[in-house]
Amino acid sequence: MTVELLSVGTELLLGNIVNTNANYLSQKCAQLGFSLYYQVTVGDNEGRLCESIQTALNRSDILILTGGLGPTQDDMTKEAVAKVLGLELQMDEASKERIASYFRFRYQKEVSAVITENNWKQALKIDGSIVVENNNGTAPGYIVETNGKTIILMPGPPNEMIPMFEESIYPYLEKKQNKVFVSSMVKICGVGESKAETDILDLINAQTNPTIAPYAKTSEVHFRVTASADTKEKAASLILPLVEELYRRFGDNIYSVLEEETLEEVVIKLLKNKNYTITTAESCTGGLLTGRLVNVAGVSEQLKEGFITYSNEAKMKYLGVKEETLATYGAVSEQTAEEMARGAARTSGADTAIAITGIAGPEGGTQEKPVGLVYIACLVKEQVTVKELRLKGNRLKIRDQSVIAALDLLRRQLL
Amino acid sequence: MTVELLSVGTELLLGNIVNTNANYLSQKCAQLGFSLYYQVTVGDNEGRLCESIQTALNRSDILILTGGLGPTQDDMTKEAVAKVLGLELQMDEASKERIASYFRFRYQKEVSAVITENNWKQALKIDGSIVVENNNGTAPGYIVETNGKTIILMPGPPNEMIPMFEESIYPYLEKKQNKVFVSSMVKICGVGESKAETDILDLINAQTNPTIAPYAKTSEVHFRVTASADTKEKAASLILPLVEELYRRFGDNIYSVLEEETLEEVVIKLLKNKNYTITTAESCTGGLLTGRLVNVAGVSEQLKEGFITYSNEAKMKYLGVKEETLATYGAVSEQTAEEMARGAARTSGADTAIAITGIAGPEGGTQEKPVGLVYIACLVKEQVTVKELRLKGNRLKIRDQSVIAALDLLRRQLL
Repeated sequence: MTVELLSVGTELLLGNIVNTNANYLSQKCAQLGFSLYYQVTVGDNEGRLCESIQTALNRSDILILTGGLGPTQDDMTKEAVAKVLGLELQMDEASKERIASYFRFRYQKEVSAVITENNWKQALKIDGSIVVENNNGTAPGYIVETNGKTIILMPGPPNEMIPMFEESIYPYLEKKQNKVFVSSMVKICGVGESKAETDILDLINAQTNPTIAPYAKTSEVHFRVTASADTKEKAASLILPLVEELYRRFGDNIYSVLEEETLEEVVIKLLKNKNYTITTAESCTGGLLTGRLVNVAGVSEQLKEGFITYSNEAKMKYLGVKEETLATYGAVSEQTAEEMARGAARTSGADTAIAITGIAGPEGGTQEKPVGLVYIACLVKEQVTVKELRLKGNRLKIRDQSVIAALDLLRRQLL
Repeated sequence: MTVELLSVGTELLLGNIVNTNANYLSQKCAQLGFSLYYQVTVGDNEGRLCESIQTALNRSDILILTGGLGPTQDDMTKEAVAKVLGLELQMDEASKERIASYFRFRYQKEVSAVITENNWKQALKIDGSIVVENNNGTAPGYIVETNGKTIILMPGPPNEMIPMFEESIYPYLEKKQNKVFVSSMVKICGVGESKAETDILDLINAQTNPTIAPYAKTSEVHFRVTASADTKEKAASLILPLVEELYRRFGDNIYSVLEEETLEEVVIKLLKNKNYTITTAESCTGGLLTGRLVNVAGVSEQLKEGFITYSNEAKMKYLGVKEETLATYGAVSEQTAEEMARGAARTSGADTAIAITGIAGPEGGTQEKPVGLVYIACLVKEQVTVKELRLKGNRLKIRDQSVIAALDLLRRQLL
């Protein structure tokens, strides 16, 4: 079966946002075993939108549209699909009630006082379509089946589209596929992209079923291993030997083989298993590391508190970093990182601690201590390991890479 | 003049990489004042590639292709363009010499020892085309002018494409444009997307030059106002009255009119102007707010420290929140938020403080205090303002919205 993606939005054509939806949906289509031949992006223009829908329906079995389902005049995806298919729009009472309850909950007022007339536009559905619930916004999604074609409409914001796709659209599309695809995402941290690929070039060149495809992320490399078969069990048994081979080659550099599992989840799971608590002491990352840990629901048993100590005074006051250490070695040093981790653990009584101090730029670098120099200290039950990093990139990228390196260092210490 | 982008590469269709080239080139086309109506992505398939080139030439004046110029069999963009235009490929001696010298420099060996036959494929040019130098790789770019259409071919890797575009293609395209474009991004926080648009529907409907286009972000609405004229000054003078009108309608809800300025930058700027310091006390956001503030380079004069107090014990220990308050009103309450802000300011000696406490979910909600209930306390010189939010979405979305609301609340208190 062939799929075509149609992203709708003038903001994409003006370059205001990067089309990450197309990337996400392409990955998912590959995972489902569908052939994706075209990704098209058009603006909020009725003529061009209708033409693109018609072209897609002529050459593809499944058309997935994202964007243009909002309440404004510019939003016309639903209307264009209905027009091309010769179908009417009608008020969907269930959607209307959902929108009303969203506004009641959000503003704690009578709906009529806060809603504007154009909000009800989002409650219109294409005749005969399946309405797909949106738990993260007011615009529902739709599935239309007509003349052997499937048309799927989803909202544009990724934080609405992705949960909707995972909860409703993926399971729906999965049923259309007569083969079963099983995949595993082998997630590696601590090995560069080109090194990782070179290390398994023989496996990539020899791939048939299962297939193996690399995905590069900031400071991580992911390999998706996918096999198809008649049954889930058979497909799973096909991927197993390849995943084992990857473990033989990458060992502890692999932190997960599960699509949805994040590095912070793995770290929190390791802490839970050992019944350890954790605390943090952040300087240049300024809360980003702890923010990542708090992404994990139910983190409260492991994480009670964290310290953001941006100034030298704060490092001394809350973490007991010695004035002498700061004067002799500087705030960005192995010694300061270690004292930060020890101080955070002591003050909070936590079993483990991560401290980060570095120069994120763009200012503040010297020849001796350039922008991108970062020290991470990881304490596990009194034992401290310090790692020096020399990172490239802008301020945010340096901070992001520091957070990932810190999580990975703690993971390795806990193994 | 209309432009169409055609990205070539199976790796884009499989979702292995995000199409940042399309985003970059779209921005540049907008800057050049060209109308970009379609972005299309196809794989390394001759039939579909030729079809997409033909379609683009039928409906657009300028076609920009990226990718598929490499040395392998899969790379066929140049061949497909030549085929559609009915032109021949011929060896370009200058390109051949450039490729040879690249290999000599890179490997410090005789070219014949390191080059493979398929590398010479990159020295073939489309008959009558302009060859565009690539200073960062072996594949040159090409410009073809034929039948009133302009076709531009560039390599796919962004680190080759972007310098080539900036050095050669942008100046070439600029000469085709006789108008100058100036735009302003009016950024609004605290007004919903549909309300904001309803409020200026008359302006949207009446737009000609300048134009006005809405962009929705999480908890924000941006309007881009763009004017074209013969000179930069004239274009700037055209956008001014419309920006002023938006100020009349949205007042303090507008936090910036600059494309690159973020909400956290505005907050830090306001703090700098008053010579105020800031501290934070985060519970459910767990460092995300402080992480946003630290995005701003040079924040160290305003922000010395922050507190991540996830547990009740930490709220009492570091911020002096009373046990009685927690017992009577709970950790997620107006009273606790206020005591967190006062405690953070007292402990750190900061002039301003923001405290956030809420239920980010997915667990932990009750009928009385549902998931999404968040309290923000903002202290400015002893004065505390507390705001109650009722947010929707997943754990991360609730936390993101809380951070933006907190930054916006402080901004308003500082005005």
